[in-house]
Amino acid sequence: MITLYHCVSARSFRPLWMLEEMGLEYDLKMLPFPPRVHAKPFFEINPLGTVPALTDDGLQMTESAAICQYLGDRYGPTHLTVSVDEADYGHFLDLLHFGEATLTFPQTLLLRYGRFEPEDRRLPQVVDDYSRWFLARLRRIDSRLQDRDYLCADRFTAADISVGYALMLADYQGLSTQYSDRVRAYWLRLKNRPAFQQALTRQHNEALAQEVPTTPAPCV
Amino acid sequence: MITLYHCVSARSFRPLWMLEEMGLEYDLKMLPFPPRVHAKPFFEINPLGTVPALTDDGLQMTESAAICQYLGDRYGPTHLTVSVDEADYGHFLDLLHFGEATLTFPQTLLLRYGRFEPEDRRLPQVVDDYSRWFLARLRRIDSRLQDRDYLCADRFTAADISVGYALMLADYQGLSTQYSDRVRAYWLRLKNRPAFQQALTRQHNEALAQEVPTTPAPCV
Repeated sequence: MITLYHCVSARSFRPLWMLEEMGLEYDLKMLPFPPRVHAKPFFEINPLGTVPALTDDGLQMTESAAICQYLGDRYGPTHLTVSVDEADYGHFLDLLHFGEATLTFPQTLLLRYGRFEPEDRRLPQVVDDYSRWFLARLRRIDSRLQDRDYLCADRFTAADISVGYALMLADYQGLSTQYSDRVRAYWLRLKNRPAFQQALTRQHNEALAQEVPTTPAPCV
Repeated sequence: MITLYHCVSARSFRPLWMLEEMGLEYDLKMLPFPPRVHAKPFFEINPLGTVPALTDDGLQMTESAAICQYLGDRYGPTHLTVSVDEADYGHFLDLLHFGEATLTFPQTLLLRYGRFEPEDRRLPQVVDDYSRWFLARLRRIDSRLQDRDYLCADRFTAADISVGYALMLADYQGLSTQYSDRVRAYWLRLKNRPAFQQALTRQHNEALAQEVPTTPAPCV
């Protein structure tokens, strides 16, 4: 049985969305954010105290983009991953990594130094530096979308989930007002997917049922 | 023909090391660091101005860990990647991502706010926060190495290249004095690999031949 440890709208939303796209069965364990403060027993599951943590028959994974690829390859075949024989395999891997390593990490700095740290440790310089950094890197996505609806392989894939989550997080932070028209239209296209909406519903209902705040992690 | 755009000991060292492990032919284009300041024409190759950039028959990739997986899958079969049929496939993907997204990005903050920014924009608080952050996350690697020499699949793989580069960068920054004994022994094991040494030699010789400074990017 697949178990996903998740905080509302945290990075673990990527595997949640992937699970909904694939229609797989899974157990969703909701944690208050941040779990390392509010859910100490979780350290026994994941000593880093971070989400996502996905367990599957003895395996444990903690990297959200890697989990999406794993689920597609392990529980496929699915059109959500791109195989090595396809022309866009390299683009697929690159954009899957890009969504997390290049587009999401900088945003965690905005959250940390703009919102989560106590007032006397906040650093507007970092918030400003990495807002600009994020928007500059986002130009690559704009450029990919110049002549396509999804990032690679002429279809929606896990690379769109990886980048899509970065756009979701940026939206919570008010950065989406600075999206180009193409990126804005793409983000709307992603949000309108039934599986995206099902993932939102599932996390909300499970948060209520498991008595965890329904506030998205980036807005805590 | 594979072409790798590279700065001495920057993240692009990952694909360089992978290419040497695989014994592939490639063209190595050396750039002074940072290329967005000192190699403006490079923007025509990669509009983000970042390394690595790898081009291969019309494809371009910019994410160092993704490139390692691509090279293994596209030019394999090789023992350097782990296939979906193997028990450790999930661990392989997770650690491949972990090396970059979780262990390398925090170090770029140390470089930026501890060294590269002008004096009046340096932020010792960030340097301190993310040094501790890096060392805390490194505990996962220590734990993986408890009963194995390499991170997964009972052999050296691209996941070791991904994490190994994070250790190389941390070494340049003086953080290796805080490695556990296990992590220190692992780092030594990685450095002693012939392909790692060949990658160091190749970048040094090409830097000289292409009249680019031989100083490692993290030490500029």
